[in-house]
Amino acid sequence: MSVAIVGAGPGDPGLITVRALELVSNAELLVYDRLVSPQLVAKALGATRIPRATLSQSEVNDLLVHHGRLGRRVVRLKGGDPFVFGRGGEEVEALVAAGVPHEVVPGVSTLTAFPALAGIPLTHRGTAAQVTVLTGTSGDGEELDYERLAGTPGTLVIFMGLRRLAELADNLILNGRDVDEPAAVLSQVSLPGSRVIVGTLGTIAGCAADAPTPAVVIVGDVVSLAWQVRELAWR
Amino acid sequence: MSVAIVGAGPGDPGLITVRALELVSNAELLVYDRLVSPQLVAKALGATRIPRATLSQSEVNDLLVHHGRLGRRVVRLKGGDPFVFGRGGEEVEALVAAGVPHEVVPGVSTLTAFPALAGIPLTHRGTAAQVTVLTGTSGDGEELDYERLAGTPGTLVIFMGLRRLAELADNLILNGRDVDEPAAVLSQVSLPGSRVIVGTLGTIAGCAADAPTPAVVIVGDVVSLAWQVRELAWR
Repeated sequence: MSVAIVGAGPGDPGLITVRALELVSNAELLVYDRLVSPQLVAKALGATRIPRATLSQSEVNDLLVHHGRLGRRVVRLKGGDPFVFGRGGEEVEALVAAGVPHEVVPGVSTLTAFPALAGIPLTHRGTAAQVTVLTGTSGDGEELDYERLAGTPGTLVIFMGLRRLAELADNLILNGRDVDEPAAVLSQVSLPGSRVIVGTLGTIAGCAADAPTPAVVIVGDVVSLAWQVRELAWR
Repeated sequence: MSVAIVGAGPGDPGLITVRALELVSNAELLVYDRLVSPQLVAKALGATRIPRATLSQSEVNDLLVHHGRLGRRVVRLKGGDPFVFGRGGEEVEALVAAGVPHEVVPGVSTLTAFPALAGIPLTHRGTAAQVTVLTGTSGDGEELDYERLAGTPGTLVIFMGLRRLAELADNLILNGRDVDEPAAVLSQVSLPGSRVIVGTLGTIAGCAADAPTPAVVIVGDVVSLAWQVRELAWR
């Protein structure tokens, strides 16, 4: 394949896949996300390395298409999984539209890895049979439907929800969710700066105000199953 | 760590993580799921290898605790991610209760990998901002709340839903979901027997009756974004 859209995993360089590491090591051009481990970027010994943050999304698409057409071994290395709120879909669309051969290499998503490493199973027999995943900042500029969300059973996982956490928690409570329902903020899990902050819907925004990104917010009884909590903030 | 609860990824042995492969290669005892690639099992050169299918869940727990207590390098290798409908939580609970040190190594989940490899983004700007994940066969013996599910926005991902697919689709339609809404069955994606079957809520059960497991059912407009569909069954 000419262009590979590759997931780097949740942060720890050991959590990249064998296939992804092979592609990175053999790349001629590497375009990498800000949150990708420098240890992984360093594996692309023979590659021109371009940080994603220096480009717009359309410049990224153009770069992948241009070098892909020239038959170069191009790797687009993305944090987590390329398709979980990662805009990997838009890059693949650009490649398909241009007729450039491509390969998608799934990665370990933050969605599943952060909770697993924090000891929080997203589902658990008798506790939660369903998981709902959403972003705190709607890409379409729409407001979240808090009434519906508050009535949703099982576990809620909220990406990019840290900045609006107080608003999110308040609105879930106003729409009928229990103020004492367990909630957690999982921040940079798998990295040295890892923080697992556990509280309730009523306390979590105050506890997690200064947590670094990337972070995932979990709401639901599965949070109380956490076995490895490092920072306990039950009230 | 003494006992590692490890995700093997969705099937393709290249989609295991670097850390997981290292643990498998150095294991003294390997307990592996039926769907784990034989190529990965073969990497555990120095290990006693026990297929999970020969044991009950409590026997698995006891085995991990027993050998963990003896300080052996034990690897519990599970398909996909250990914590996404994988009962990894129960194994960790047993280890914690027994005071046995353990490590969790997240894997690439079927949840994200099957859609990514089939060219279906679970979320996409303007198409779906939310994903709801559930099992077709409730572990608690409860019936699914079809009325609520039918009204849930965004993408539905249904694990272990193949056997009840006709019932699932019929009940979603009866509760107001569009009979022409795109739906897909993704079966053994990343393996040689891979099948991607695309249809609508009205046609999918008939199209996918003989699809092999593991399979994931996707319902939602993102299905129509599939770029790499191998088997097309639009009505």
